[in-house]
Amino acid sequence: MDIQSTFETLDKKFTSFGGLEQGGITRLLYSPEWIAAVRELEATFKEEGLEVSFDDVGNLSGRLVGSKYSEETILTGSHIDTVVEGGHLDGQFGILSALVAVKYLKEKYGQPLRTIEVLSLAEEEGSRFPYTFWGSKNFFNLAKKTDVGTIEDAEGIKFEDAMHASGFDYRKTDDVRDDIKAFVEVHIEQGKVLEAENKAIGVVTGIVGQKRYTINLKGEANHAGTTPMSLRRDTVVAYSEIVTDLTKRAREIGEPLVLTFGHVTPVPNTVNVVPGEITFSIDCRHIDQQLLNDFAREIEDKIKAVAEANSMTYDINLWMDEAPSLMDKEIIQIVEQAAKNNVGDSYKLMPSGAGHDAQIFADFVPTAMLFVPSIGGISHNTNEETKIEDLVKGIEVLKDVLYELAYKE
Amino acid sequence: MDIQSTFETLDKKFTSFGGLEQGGITRLLYSPEWIAAVRELEATFKEEGLEVSFDDVGNLSGRLVGSKYSEETILTGSHIDTVVEGGHLDGQFGILSALVAVKYLKEKYGQPLRTIEVLSLAEEEGSRFPYTFWGSKNFFNLAKKTDVGTIEDAEGIKFEDAMHASGFDYRKTDDVRDDIKAFVEVHIEQGKVLEAENKAIGVVTGIVGQKRYTINLKGEANHAGTTPMSLRRDTVVAYSEIVTDLTKRAREIGEPLVLTFGHVTPVPNTVNVVPGEITFSIDCRHIDQQLLNDFAREIEDKIKAVAEANSMTYDINLWMDEAPSLMDKEIIQIVEQAAKNNVGDSYKLMPSGAGHDAQIFADFVPTAMLFVPSIGGISHNTNEETKIEDLVKGIEVLKDVLYELAYKE
Repeated sequence: MDIQSTFETLDKKFTSFGGLEQGGITRLLYSPEWIAAVRELEATFKEEGLEVSFDDVGNLSGRLVGSKYSEETILTGSHIDTVVEGGHLDGQFGILSALVAVKYLKEKYGQPLRTIEVLSLAEEEGSRFPYTFWGSKNFFNLAKKTDVGTIEDAEGIKFEDAMHASGFDYRKTDDVRDDIKAFVEVHIEQGKVLEAENKAIGVVTGIVGQKRYTINLKGEANHAGTTPMSLRRDTVVAYSEIVTDLTKRAREIGEPLVLTFGHVTPVPNTVNVVPGEITFSIDCRHIDQQLLNDFAREIEDKIKAVAEANSMTYDINLWMDEAPSLMDKEIIQIVEQAAKNNVGDSYKLMPSGAGHDAQIFADFVPTAMLFVPSIGGISHNTNEETKIEDLVKGIEVLKDVLYELAYKE
Repeated sequence: MDIQSTFETLDKKFTSFGGLEQGGITRLLYSPEWIAAVRELEATFKEEGLEVSFDDVGNLSGRLVGSKYSEETILTGSHIDTVVEGGHLDGQFGILSALVAVKYLKEKYGQPLRTIEVLSLAEEEGSRFPYTFWGSKNFFNLAKKTDVGTIEDAEGIKFEDAMHASGFDYRKTDDVRDDIKAFVEVHIEQGKVLEAENKAIGVVTGIVGQKRYTINLKGEANHAGTTPMSLRRDTVVAYSEIVTDLTKRAREIGEPLVLTFGHVTPVPNTVNVVPGEITFSIDCRHIDQQLLNDFAREIEDKIKAVAEANSMTYDINLWMDEAPSLMDKEIIQIVEQAAKNNVGDSYKLMPSGAGHDAQIFADFVPTAMLFVPSIGGISHNTNEETKIEDLVKGIEVLKDVLYELAYKE
């Protein structure tokens, strides 16, 4: 079979569910477009001779049962939902690449020794309801009724009403599957590292840990004309010193540390008043927990020092503190070998700076991820795209990884 | 007569027009409160034996006619309007201190040689309609019908409808008075320099020139997790460098240069996106035109250099460029001597960092200003206050200045 044309046919079909005129997809959890997509995926799995089952919340599995170790499952897939006006690859490519790889393996090698299961996770993005990883968290019984019992979408529709209307319900059992021997997720990079370094495959070493802060500084609002520089407690000046110094320090520490000051609002935020107050965000990420913790301490020390030097009060609110998720070393090696076989040295061992379902799986089962490049690094955008030859290479590497995991003793 | 009690009685009376429960005044141009205040002021001038006249737009004069040089006028006063929820001193103190000083001089010395005219200017703040200095600009025929013909207040009332309803109209003549030999304005400092230096009187040397910019930088919005520091064009980082470097430079140049980055809005202004665009304001002021121009060039050069070093595009929009207004050297000396006589060395020669009616007058007639301290530098606020002994000192200095100008040969 031809991998490219098989993928292109499937991609065209599934992009139509929630597909937008300008390209891309809006396919929110439990929406009509989402229901149509998972039902069509169910039918497609059946056509391909896979054993199909939904779990309670709407995660969909298509199993190619193993001949010898049928109770050992090699899981592969990603999420079926998208952001609003998202691309056609974020999530969907992980499911379709798995389906194409399994179809190829089945046609070429027949039944595997271990079971291969293609997985469509119900939700990852948190784009309709304020809750992320609904699919993968349910897979491991991590999502609770109380987490979503009161949440609503932008139109005031309750999470559970939308779920029930789709024919799904809360998880009915606390049991967690113990048959999963590996989980492999293929995803677009959503960054431009691979493109910049001209690599075809990213072998993911882990998903970065992440800390997010909201910082508030209070100085004194003053008249911009009548207040000499020496009598000011100007929070924008203090903020700028913090941004400049910490950015310099982050660059010194080096990749893969990233530091972002994405949000800032001074008060009163008007041209002729010295800003007496400022609120801003800090987002920092690294794959190394110790290094991330050390840098967070530097961040907090810098804020305190600048605030004190300028006679300001400060509030440091660390509201997100996610640990790094490391991928499984043995499967990384298998993925790396498969990448080598397919693209020579055109691959890169790299952390993922974005969150993925794989980070939930990594806490419970041996997990790996591989990236294909994103053109211009663009994602969460209808212009999200990857060269077709790179998508094909991603499928080929996945196929070889699954062959190693499911067809070999 | 007792200056303090005379002033306090007048202040209490006039603070009631637009007076607020929490203290302070809201008295907007051509509002019922404004009309009541100017009508009461007209009556008060008459009671004090002054010759009263309104001009077309509502500027009110109370003249104590000179015995020898009646066609030479020494003008003193300020504006009768306030900002929304303003204090009881901003503007009003300039009128009432003039009235008290003239009453004192008249009682003590009788008729002056030259005419003294107490002036209530209709409007300075631009708080009801988007137009400032309506009073003083009309005094010199600088305000045109076309400037205000289409403007409205927040409730959609047209400027000219409000003016006509108050019984006033556009200026009917282009003639400008040639009898004014001096204008002296007393005002609260609206800053905290005098308080910080423990001075009772500020002898104003001039009103600073002022440049205001809106700056836009465009870099590239990126995912905060997947974009390494080396691949970013982060506009917040560029902005912070500009703020830090220019603030350092402004401090090096020293007082009275002031530099304020009061407004900033990055795009998209969210925690997990590298800000690809930023818009911010710059306000810089100095009494020396050449120095202000030189610093403005440094500002523009710095923005260009930082933008270019970070591969960003920039837009530099200088939308306000007001020249400094220097006070008259001879009258400054008279004010300084009067200050010395009243408060010893507890006075300070200083520029005004805020705009005042005096800057309009200074282009046409010999002009001087004197400041009294503002507690905590607070103004444009109902908590605006000055110690009563400082208010009295301000009136005493003004009285001595007017004596020099109007009673001496």
